[in-house]
Amino acid sequence: MIVRAMADLSPSGTTARSRRWFLGLGAALGSALAACRAKQAPPPVEPRALGAPISPYGSRSRFEKPLRFFRPTTIPEEASSRTPLHDTYGIITPSSLHFERHHGGVPDIDPSGHTLTIHGLVDRPLVFSVDELKRLPSVSRILFLECSGNSASEWKGANEPDVQRAHGLTSCSEWTGVWLSRLLRECGAQPKGTWILAEGADACKLARSLPIAKAMLDVLVAYGQNGEALRPEQGYPLRLIVPGWEGNVNVKWLRRIKVLDQPAMTRWETSKYTDLLADGTARQFTFDMDAKSVITRPSGGDTLAGPGIYEVTGLAWSGRGAIARVEVSADGGRSWTNAILQEPVLPRAHARFTWSWHWDGHDAILQSRCTDDTGYVQPPRTDLVAVRGVNSNYHNNAIQSWMVAADGKVTNGNA
Amino acid sequence: MIVRAMADLSPSGTTARSRRWFLGLGAALGSALAACRAKQAPPPVEPRALGAPISPYGSRSRFEKPLRFFRPTTIPEEASSRTPLHDTYGIITPSSLHFERHHGGVPDIDPSGHTLTIHGLVDRPLVFSVDELKRLPSVSRILFLECSGNSASEWKGANEPDVQRAHGLTSCSEWTGVWLSRLLRECGAQPKGTWILAEGADACKLARSLPIAKAMLDVLVAYGQNGEALRPEQGYPLRLIVPGWEGNVNVKWLRRIKVLDQPAMTRWETSKYTDLLADGTARQFTFDMDAKSVITRPSGGDTLAGPGIYEVTGLAWSGRGAIARVEVSADGGRSWTNAILQEPVLPRAHARFTWSWHWDGHDAILQSRCTDDTGYVQPPRTDLVAVRGVNSNYHNNAIQSWMVAADGKVTNGNA
Repeated sequence: MIVRAMADLSPSGTTARSRRWFLGLGAALGSALAACRAKQAPPPVEPRALGAPISPYGSRSRFEKPLRFFRPTTIPEEASSRTPLHDTYGIITPSSLHFERHHGGVPDIDPSGHTLTIHGLVDRPLVFSVDELKRLPSVSRILFLECSGNSASEWKGANEPDVQRAHGLTSCSEWTGVWLSRLLRECGAQPKGTWILAEGADACKLARSLPIAKAMLDVLVAYGQNGEALRPEQGYPLRLIVPGWEGNVNVKWLRRIKVLDQPAMTRWETSKYTDLLADGTARQFTFDMDAKSVITRPSGGDTLAGPGIYEVTGLAWSGRGAIARVEVSADGGRSWTNAILQEPVLPRAHARFTWSWHWDGHDAILQSRCTDDTGYVQPPRTDLVAVRGVNSNYHNNAIQSWMVAADGKVTNGNA
Repeated sequence: MIVRAMADLSPSGTTARSRRWFLGLGAALGSALAACRAKQAPPPVEPRALGAPISPYGSRSRFEKPLRFFRPTTIPEEASSRTPLHDTYGIITPSSLHFERHHGGVPDIDPSGHTLTIHGLVDRPLVFSVDELKRLPSVSRILFLECSGNSASEWKGANEPDVQRAHGLTSCSEWTGVWLSRLLRECGAQPKGTWILAEGADACKLARSLPIAKAMLDVLVAYGQNGEALRPEQGYPLRLIVPGWEGNVNVKWLRRIKVLDQPAMTRWETSKYTDLLADGTARQFTFDMDAKSVITRPSGGDTLAGPGIYEVTGLAWSGRGAIARVEVSADGGRSWTNAILQEPVLPRAHARFTWSWHWDGHDAILQSRCTDDTGYVQPPRTDLVAVRGVNSNYHNNAIQSWMVAADGKVTNGNA
């Protein structure tokens, strides 16, 4: 994709401006605008025949091409696909392009026969049908979901060529469901119950342990995504939504929650989803996704048309709260400027930032760095490696660099 | 659908609660919960074979049935379809279920050949390709879109049996695009230009006039909807998004904007989309969609299972700003209680409200009434009719009544 120089990148106001100001600005920009294709032509000819009729359920245009990315694999049921962050807009990820990470494929579940069992250290084990859950008081939240393995490729420096491959295991949806706290209260979870185990109905029965404190805080048993039912690959008909915590604990195709007095130590939290350190020990139960941001445009694979003003845009998110600030650098982190955060900026959701950059045509390194409302600042990769070594596979929230060469080509600039 | 009595409808907190409180509440609710299916059974058997592989672009489960509603018509290209508000969640409407209203069908437009021409009273007429617009600074906003004919059926009292038919011509999306103000400034709109004409590329070349003051305030030339390209039936590849104004002026398949010194008086703002009053005169250019709300559940077609506590939920929106308050009545408007507004509550967007109702099993009339941040209060139907008569077809924002009979059946209760 070629990103062209643009004439005017000052943020447009949302309030009316005087005619004089607006005309003055318009005139000043007239010559610069020649960078865009500009001609005084009559409107083109458009279809004159009736178009397609109304329809019960729509789909995207046949001309649209963005797709989830995945490499050919011999086991496509134990694989991941990545969101085309470069070609998505705003903060809501289209459900059809939400990243996937499966360990046993996507089960085809009839919701009329699906249930959620809550048992273990409870006074009243209960089984809930999907319809019963839908009749309970509902809540919706716009939340990001990030695989803890997102950007794993970048631990040792530049690896993936573009933002979809390097950062495409994060997406953001409006999730709807029932507070898990309500269900646990109704089952009478016992005082010695300090953990829960959540288990999916997929072929591998993926199961993860969570402290019950989190379960009582803000965890949802979700049945809705972006206004309709969860997509099959996102856990239809029920999914645990654990705001701000690594994707793997947001158990899909949720069938069972057991209240325990200790973590279950499933294979998904022992052999997998632990963070191997330099000394050979591993961090375990590193649930929170720390603050992270990435410039999605321009990013690897883009080509700038020449010196000029460009809109830089990207996403920032934190599992610990709301994004408070995003800064952008064009000189590899020597100097930083605040980007504009687009409203709404919601806790544990993607936030969209934009920044106006005048590129002088020389080599440049674009970076973004976010700060969340706990004060935590996204680290450079070197800082992360100093603490974690280079054996890690998970929880890489380091600053991403995009290198802009004098010929305009943008490549992965992680040193 | 049968809505069952529920045990506990107090709003669940999002902060941790003491173990004692949580157990205490759980015990208190244990007996009431028997209203739900509750058994101490082992987890059901689930699929043991690998499921479907990852995929490039997802679709909903084959078990999901909500659809847009429309009656069979001889001209499905000049028709409307309605969002299943009863079966959608949160505030984002799934793009596939966004209402439709077309006058010439849905054109099949290749974006590579589509352009937007801005001409008329401007210093520099310009033609923008879709790619050029995508390179300009972008903005995203979550906004409702309501057809001014929504609820037209209800002017003379109860007509439609359910909320989809009565109120399904409103939907809410995250729209992404370019400020129209930026484009007009770049074209150098002249001081005598007080109106614009926006024209679509559909077969009927639908065209509407807008004051340029609104165009400079907050109007978008949108190319994105809910994170991806506009759906074809929502104007692909370009649509005018006019926050808070009647759907018809949000011109789809946007091809041309002409700056004028007066409204163009197209057929779409003379023979149609004017509001016929009792005295035979008509209101014209009634752009703003006034504050409106509706209870989506329980609503017409539901059956309550018996006396008990129910979650009442619905949507509220205002074209003039943000929803400040929603009140709910169960006695036909004699007494009102504040509902809970779910965050985020965004200006000119759907807001989700919930309310806990203890139904005693007698006849009841459920209503919701919203107030926006200008102080405007949604009126009863009688007040609207007193001012507007019963000839009107557009801009019915009256309070909707749902009648609950002693047998639990819910029907349209507009008197």
